[in-house]
Amino acid sequence: MDNSLLIKNVLLDGERRNLLVRDGRFVCMDAARGAEAAKVIDGEGLAILPAFYNTHTHAAMTLMRGYGDDRPLHEWLEQWVWPFEDKLGPEDIRHGSEIAIREMISTGTVFFNDMYFDIDETIQLVEASGMRAAIGVTMMDNHPKTLKDEKATRIRSWKDSDRIQLTVAPHSVYTAGRETLLDAARLARENGRKIHIHISETVKEVQDCLAQTGMTPVRYLDSLGLLGPDVIAAHCVHVDKEEWDILAERGVTVSHCPCSNMKLGSGRFPYELAIASGARITLGTDGCSSNNNLDMREEMKTAALLAKVTGDAALLSAAQVLRWATRNGAEAFGYDAGEIASGKLADAVLVDLSNPKMTPCHNLVSNWVYSADSSCIKYVICNGKIL
Amino acid sequence: MDNSLLIKNVLLDGERRNLLVRDGRFVCMDAARGAEAAKVIDGEGLAILPAFYNTHTHAAMTLMRGYGDDRPLHEWLEQWVWPFEDKLGPEDIRHGSEIAIREMISTGTVFFNDMYFDIDETIQLVEASGMRAAIGVTMMDNHPKTLKDEKATRIRSWKDSDRIQLTVAPHSVYTAGRETLLDAARLARENGRKIHIHISETVKEVQDCLAQTGMTPVRYLDSLGLLGPDVIAAHCVHVDKEEWDILAERGVTVSHCPCSNMKLGSGRFPYELAIASGARITLGTDGCSSNNNLDMREEMKTAALLAKVTGDAALLSAAQVLRWATRNGAEAFGYDAGEIASGKLADAVLVDLSNPKMTPCHNLVSNWVYSADSSCIKYVICNGKIL
Repeated sequence: MDNSLLIKNVLLDGERRNLLVRDGRFVCMDAARGAEAAKVIDGEGLAILPAFYNTHTHAAMTLMRGYGDDRPLHEWLEQWVWPFEDKLGPEDIRHGSEIAIREMISTGTVFFNDMYFDIDETIQLVEASGMRAAIGVTMMDNHPKTLKDEKATRIRSWKDSDRIQLTVAPHSVYTAGRETLLDAARLARENGRKIHIHISETVKEVQDCLAQTGMTPVRYLDSLGLLGPDVIAAHCVHVDKEEWDILAERGVTVSHCPCSNMKLGSGRFPYELAIASGARITLGTDGCSSNNNLDMREEMKTAALLAKVTGDAALLSAAQVLRWATRNGAEAFGYDAGEIASGKLADAVLVDLSNPKMTPCHNLVSNWVYSADSSCIKYVICNGKIL
Repeated sequence: MDNSLLIKNVLLDGERRNLLVRDGRFVCMDAARGAEAAKVIDGEGLAILPAFYNTHTHAAMTLMRGYGDDRPLHEWLEQWVWPFEDKLGPEDIRHGSEIAIREMISTGTVFFNDMYFDIDETIQLVEASGMRAAIGVTMMDNHPKTLKDEKATRIRSWKDSDRIQLTVAPHSVYTAGRETLLDAARLARENGRKIHIHISETVKEVQDCLAQTGMTPVRYLDSLGLLGPDVIAAHCVHVDKEEWDILAERGVTVSHCPCSNMKLGSGRFPYELAIASGARITLGTDGCSSNNNLDMREEMKTAALLAKVTGDAALLSAAQVLRWATRNGAEAFGYDAGEIASGKLADAVLVDLSNPKMTPCHNLVSNWVYSADSSCIKYVICNGKIL
């Protein structure tokens, strides 16, 4: 079956071009005027940009969007989130993930790195949606839905597709003990899986870890041999300079989630240290109950503004944060995407330049990061297909 | 001519209702099923919320959206903004304000408090658009477009309409000297106009004012007798506890502009002090060149997140920030709006509850503040008319 897609006359790097996509990749960035394809998009008035890779979320938590927010963290978790989660069954997870996938596609996201329960529901929905995802097999001690043996079997028997991979997801140092963390690392490495974990999200997490292990979470996890280039570490808000050097040396990918860190009062991400360390930084929305959406465009702007607020207006430019939200995320998960270039996977958004938010267009990337919203998005393309 | 509008079956305070609007106001919040009107909106699947009042912007600066951003403040002003502004004529202002008005309407804003030049262009556009605005007659020393005598004549001869008022706008303590500030206050009070001014946006402004007058901007302006219930003070980022008490006692309205303060590295608004003082706080987007949009929904979320980031997740709730963005702004400018209630001006937005960003709906206001974007807006109503 011919799966070719021709995007005619679309703005790329300041010029109107005809882009040809085949077998999920850009194959020609300057196709002839008379080129043909199985599917054609008229790109007149549109610009093409890389689609988003959301590197930390809990998709089904859309179910808790707006549920019990504006409350102190512990009251929110103990009186609202946990009692709600106790009642969720597979059908609820399915419903929550379905809303999440609709929202992500409508806001230009083609990949999400998930950590939750009842993963079969989410896997089926991602398969049908045309998106990509890394679905975490969550490991927490004392949690009925995270039985260790069953998880290990699942990880061992899983075969990746071109759009879906499984990850091993020990939740955090405060919910997974030493044995669980070591098991998770072993299981991931024996089976070539990424490791998805929360690290140093709050001051309390760091203090408790220090009290229990004599080390901060980054140093403790490093002492266990868990940190490596296969690790995606969400948050890393309370990480000092020496720890940033450890993360960078081990090749850890950091998923920065500014909206969630702000909304829960967790603190400002240490942009200066993080950027100086050279660690790979990506962006995530976290779950809807602490954001309360899955909109990566908004996450880009929030990150850039939070970087600048303490006084340096030049810190974290639009181009840099767009790279965090696209190419850095794709690279972290082994997808050759995040750039609109020949040979790259065709994961892209087409935005409407006539939308007032995109007008005038002194700088397309600046408009996209600082001004746009999902009303500017006309098409979302993943793996060469229109979603 | 019958100007009635019936909004059928729309969600208000958790119930489906038929709302009747006449002569620009809500006249019945529970109209009979068979009620008729000159214009009818089917509110099935929609919820109604108050429309936005943007209390600080420079509308025509849409022309500089994305122009020279991510640069230090003084380089940005001196090498980018000011040389650009020097070249602007009335036709450019018209074009810039036109884009601004299109963007504001599409994002749910029905009123803006403007400060710029060539105001006749903007006035004509507002008149035609159906929006409301307070248009500032800008006063700066040594600026060719702000001749004092001409301005005074303009203010004296102006007659307000039900949608447009003029304000006296001495730009700031660093661009308007003592005489200009005193003239502005006298002119405003003799003619019953509001005063629109920037106050304590940056540390530099405060330090320079201290060096020149021995007082901070708030204390200096108070010593001149300028502060009063007719003043709208933009920014107020660097304002101490005693100054907040002065602002509150004088009845000054503060326009908080979080995106601009963050993007320019001006600093975090002192939410704790501001809220504790009891001063009336409203929201503004500032101009597009420092934001880079005019989207008040985004401004609400940014304000609430920036309030919480330092540790208190309960500070500035969704309901409170929505009030800043709507009713508080309306009240500051003497419009009896900002609530969906009988007798109030019909300034409203109708949002689509089927949008994934609005799903599920545990809390409509939370979804609107933290999750929505302009793709959720179906209708914008100002003064009882659909824009």
